[in-house]
Amino acid sequence: MEPKKVSRKLLTRLPIYLDYIKSLPDDTMNISATNMAHALGLGDVLVRKDLAKVSNAGRCKLGYARETLAQDIEDFLDINSLTGAIIVGAGKLGQALLDYGGFEASGMSILAGFDQKPTKKRSSAGKPIYSMEKLPDFCKENNIRIGIITVPATEAQKVCDCLICCGIEAIWNFAPIHLVVPEKIVLQSENLAVSLTALRLQLKRQQDQKAYIEI
Amino acid sequence: MEPKKVSRKLLTRLPIYLDYIKSLPDDTMNISATNMAHALGLGDVLVRKDLAKVSNAGRCKLGYARETLAQDIEDFLDINSLTGAIIVGAGKLGQALLDYGGFEASGMSILAGFDQKPTKKRSSAGKPIYSMEKLPDFCKENNIRIGIITVPATEAQKVCDCLICCGIEAIWNFAPIHLVVPEKIVLQSENLAVSLTALRLQLKRQQDQKAYIEI
Repeated sequence: MEPKKVSRKLLTRLPIYLDYIKSLPDDTMNISATNMAHALGLGDVLVRKDLAKVSNAGRCKLGYARETLAQDIEDFLDINSLTGAIIVGAGKLGQALLDYGGFEASGMSILAGFDQKPTKKRSSAGKPIYSMEKLPDFCKENNIRIGIITVPATEAQKVCDCLICCGIEAIWNFAPIHLVVPEKIVLQSENLAVSLTALRLQLKRQQDQKAYIEI
Repeated sequence: MEPKKVSRKLLTRLPIYLDYIKSLPDDTMNISATNMAHALGLGDVLVRKDLAKVSNAGRCKLGYARETLAQDIEDFLDINSLTGAIIVGAGKLGQALLDYGGFEASGMSILAGFDQKPTKKRSSAGKPIYSMEKLPDFCKENNIRIGIITVPATEAQKVCDCLICCGIEAIWNFAPIHLVVPEKIVLQSENLAVSLTALRLQLKRQQDQKAYIEI
């Protein structure tokens, strides 16, 4: 496949397509974008375009070979190379993410939490919570490349620097602060206050039609 | 102001601008986009465009009257009409959001949590957690228009319908499921698994340059 630009919305739909393909009777060999669109209540053109972005196995009139399409979606999402991540900051949000069941289906496993002062040794779901001293060894031994930051804003840059020292290459940041990272590091920030402000402004827009937000 | 399309990135910067304006010495009467850009380490053109989207009080050579600019940003963010919201689902994520300190600065206050079976009466920060039976009266008495859903996916649609019955007009959904709402309801979903997948794919892209994601 050539490199393609994909949207977050497509990423939301791909697991739905995959579930649907896997749910079909065993003797289904081919599958068309049109049938899939109807079954899922989505637009025909949308599904056709989505599938073309992740697979080039579609054949005119035949549609997609079921196995190949499933494989192409899994390859695209890199599901089969289950990646391990760690969380720094084992407060409520950190523990909520640590125990969140929805990540493994998309090829991720959060292996452990770390905290300056852990208040317990395991999360409710039994994931280990370690003190920060163990971070470098754990990352090295488990080849961890993704780190999640759920510490207060004042601690976040220090933790971020520390993660990079431990070999982390991608950071998912929940602290409401702008982090500075070297260019080679992938950084994605979730600013919850901004998300809520965007929601409020959409509500306001519905009422007074003054401003509108592109989400 | 005419209606303008604003991005989430602008929404992230506006509170930073506001903080900066408020931090200036009392005798500062005017402020230019250029000075602000330098002080905050942002691009000159970027700040100029951002400010033009939220205020039309900029004057050639003079810049912005400080008070007017602060007021325009606050009006744009609707900060002074502090809005109350409620959360349904008082598990770890629900409690983390209930006690998150970052919302009030952007004009939001989460007043209470609700749960089918509350395990405690108050969150760590002292916010009340009620049983679901109290939801309709609470929403009515406090004129609640924003509801946050942090229940498991299997419960989310039922909770969503219930919130709409209680007069909620905007829903912020953290359950990993597609919710069906009437057209007049504003719905914003946070799909954490998709965010993490997007991060992984960015990391993968850095390595093999095969696919790239638009975040």
